[in-house]
Amino acid sequence: MRIAYQGEPGAFSEAAARQIAGDAVLVPCRSFEDVFASVDGGTVDYGVLPIENSIGGSIHRNFDLLLEHEIPIVGELEVPVVHHLLALPGRTLDHIKRIYSHPQALAQCDRFLRTLSGVEITATYDTAGSAKMIADQRLEDGGAVASARGAKVFGLVQLKSSSQDYENYTTRFLVIGPRPLSTAAPDKTSIVFTLANEPGALFKAVSVFALRGIDLTKLESRPIPDRKWEYLFYVDLAAASDDPPCARALAHLAEFAPMVRVLGSYPSCKPASATDALPDSFEMHA
Amino acid sequence: MRIAYQGEPGAFSEAAARQIAGDAVLVPCRSFEDVFASVDGGTVDYGVLPIENSIGGSIHRNFDLLLEHEIPIVGELEVPVVHHLLALPGRTLDHIKRIYSHPQALAQCDRFLRTLSGVEITATYDTAGSAKMIADQRLEDGGAVASARGAKVFGLVQLKSSSQDYENYTTRFLVIGPRPLSTAAPDKTSIVFTLANEPGALFKAVSVFALRGIDLTKLESRPIPDRKWEYLFYVDLAAASDDPPCARALAHLAEFAPMVRVLGSYPSCKPASATDALPDSFEMHA
Repeated sequence: MRIAYQGEPGAFSEAAARQIAGDAVLVPCRSFEDVFASVDGGTVDYGVLPIENSIGGSIHRNFDLLLEHEIPIVGELEVPVVHHLLALPGRTLDHIKRIYSHPQALAQCDRFLRTLSGVEITATYDTAGSAKMIADQRLEDGGAVASARGAKVFGLVQLKSSSQDYENYTTRFLVIGPRPLSTAAPDKTSIVFTLANEPGALFKAVSVFALRGIDLTKLESRPIPDRKWEYLFYVDLAAASDDPPCARALAHLAEFAPMVRVLGSYPSCKPASATDALPDSFEMHA
Repeated sequence: MRIAYQGEPGAFSEAAARQIAGDAVLVPCRSFEDVFASVDGGTVDYGVLPIENSIGGSIHRNFDLLLEHEIPIVGELEVPVVHHLLALPGRTLDHIKRIYSHPQALAQCDRFLRTLSGVEITATYDTAGSAKMIADQRLEDGGAVASARGAKVFGLVQLKSSSQDYENYTTRFLVIGPRPLSTAAPDKTSIVFTLANEPGALFKAVSVFALRGIDLTKLESRPIPDRKWEYLFYVDLAAASDDPPCARALAHLAEFAPMVRVLGSYPSCKPASATDALPDSFEMHA
């Protein structure tokens, strides 16, 4: 099995890809677009995409790409996010004058970073890339906020472990691909739809599911890029799309929603503990 | 009047601050936190914060800070986002080997950037900062995706004007401060609430407004950082919070929502054209 992910080895997306199948060949991609292109072109079996972060929220670029492509969502998984302050071996906190990481990772470690004085905080494109930069350029006074796996891959040490503000950060990932990922029955459906800009439209949309006892596990409105003041809605339903009440609710929604599209119907991940979710051979929090 | 904003002169937040009052003293801040601190400390009258982008979606960090602080939202405004490819004077597209900008700006110009070959695209922390870097370091083969105002501030020229994929990108900004911003009556209310994780909870929440004829103009669910699988909801209502039906709806919501907080009730911005919204003395798209 070949799985594409975005980022460098050591990125959280790599950890997600590894959760799917410990023996899969993991294919790093430069961009989310390249992940979709790899699945479209058949050079990989699945792609893995971060879609929602417990602090940064939805990753809209991936919703856009799901709409642009015809590749269905076939699964989801959660990866715990644990950040560490990494540096070259032999360094201590006193040596560090500049810390690099992705803006979201820096925000997640805000409280710890505020305890440091005389340290410049520099935002970069990704966490694993920051760790790589410290290693490649031998930045003696530099630190990177990144994963334990990043430390391992790039030969760095942890100056401060688990440096994020809250313990329970997670990122939810979607798996896309032309074939089902598992034999488990789908129990979750992701849809996107538009609504006419008129009073009560959203209430009607929510009602078609509530009246049939189908729970919504996510609802998000988003302005449509090229049509100001119109909104797209992303909704996750706690039901399979071919479950008769759900199928009828979707047909009901289509009676008044200008656009309804099912992005995929798949088995939901259980909110398992991190240890349960990771195979034994894989280092936790990496 | 003194208004704090995050970023460098030439940033879109500066344009937003300038829209509030052409003669205001604008105070650049290093971070969103610093904008809140300036308003809290009374060194400025208002702060201006980007909150929703027509492509990148909500800026959750600012929702977090609104929850952490007690400063009300007193207004909102829309700023059109127009990106240009900027470079040193005398340069042409053929000279450019590396282009710098914020990842969201790069994503917004994806189609144009894909037409360039042999050019390295580098993500940075902000658009205006990228323009500043080209100018300060005299990067002869560098370009920055930034605003027309950025070109003016840093002495750069536009190699490619209006280089974004869609014409109608906008960013919505909130104005925060201890006093009302205008004498116009509030007609919009922003609230945040939590819901018990039980079937139909969201339907009930939407119903308290729909049953009273109050329209929702935004609804977004977001995982709570330190309580996995629980959600915060951000909702904008098309009504003043002290309007009796709205006040009753909020009381109704509080009957079953563990937490309800009004972030502010304020006059909504009209979806005016860019030209209408900007004072004559101010350069459009800056």
